[in-house]
Amino acid sequence: MKFSPLVDELIQALKCLPGVGPKSAQRMAFQLLERDRKAGQSLGHALSKAMSDVGHCQSCRTFTEEVHCPICASHKRGQSQVICVVETPADVLAIEAGGHFSGRYFVLLGHLSPLDGIGPDELGLALLEEHLASGEVSELILATNPTVEGDATAHFIADMAKSHQVIVSRIAHGVPVGGELEYVDSTTLALSFNGRLPL
Amino acid sequence: MKFSPLVDELIQALKCLPGVGPKSAQRMAFQLLERDRKAGQSLGHALSKAMSDVGHCQSCRTFTEEVHCPICASHKRGQSQVICVVETPADVLAIEAGGHFSGRYFVLLGHLSPLDGIGPDELGLALLEEHLASGEVSELILATNPTVEGDATAHFIADMAKSHQVIVSRIAHGVPVGGELEYVDSTTLALSFNGRLPL
Repeated sequence: MKFSPLVDELIQALKCLPGVGPKSAQRMAFQLLERDRKAGQSLGHALSKAMSDVGHCQSCRTFTEEVHCPICASHKRGQSQVICVVETPADVLAIEAGGHFSGRYFVLLGHLSPLDGIGPDELGLALLEEHLASGEVSELILATNPTVEGDATAHFIADMAKSHQVIVSRIAHGVPVGGELEYVDSTTLALSFNGRLPL
Repeated sequence: MKFSPLVDELIQALKCLPGVGPKSAQRMAFQLLERDRKAGQSLGHALSKAMSDVGHCQSCRTFTEEVHCPICASHKRGQSQVICVVETPADVLAIEAGGHFSGRYFVLLGHLSPLDGIGPDELGLALLEEHLASGEVSELILATNPTVEGDATAHFIADMAKSHQVIVSRIAHGVPVGGELEYVDSTTLALSFNGRLPL
């Protein structure tokens, strides 16, 4: 037995969300129908609007419905000479939550992964090279994830930047604050020794 | 820092779903924006349509966008003399998945809970009494949840049905198939002894 067509369609559609299977989708649909139709309406509206209107910032490639994202559009930060390269818009949020970086970003929206067909073109590296060639960039901080693909992407970009008189740095990898040495993996520990700083 | 208004609005709206917090909402929004805008569009469309068009079956109170749900509208089952009373539309689905019940349903959409202001009126018991008074019902099977509230609701409905010459029964509680006696709680075990059947 199925529910009525509209309810069924809603349950099927909810399964497109990551981590949501048939049972969760059913629970979500019933919760909205029983308790909170207004929230369901606004979610439907927000989804439709975001899916059709949100594009990418023409300067840093993060999500925005404007031509430039708030950071690139700001007078103070949009002209910054320091660019931080990250893999996803969520990384921008994580760095902004700390509030210690005041430059601008460049969002790759992925990492180099030749087997999946993701090369320099898909990561918008031509646009990044334009930024570098403009002479308005003094430092490039590579904050891609500390994974094999993230490291490969960082090295590729570092090679690309060499011809442009730009300082290229990679964020430090080491023991996280609050972590216990005993439980840190050996690769991280090795990196923390290699990256040691004079006190 | 916030995302652009539309992305932010989408993340906030996704938090209305049960079990979805700020991090999950962000992940869902980015997944849809990055990978599957078409699915996001259909979800938005399905939500808007379901929230505005889905009402309740006038006969059994389950969710449907028609006047009667598929079961109540069917020639074979809609006129059945056996009514199974359940708490939620999801319970209907669970029973239908078994395929062993061929009567019709009555969905309470909750259980008696005076402290939350849920009384007989909220559960549509007047409509159920109409069904009973019509003389077209021979048996009422009470399949509310085996909780304090579900039991109380079942007893309330049983009292109500007494004046209508209707057989009232409650589904059996006992050791579930595949369960191990060792791990079954004592109340369930006691109920399984009380409800024992001759072999």
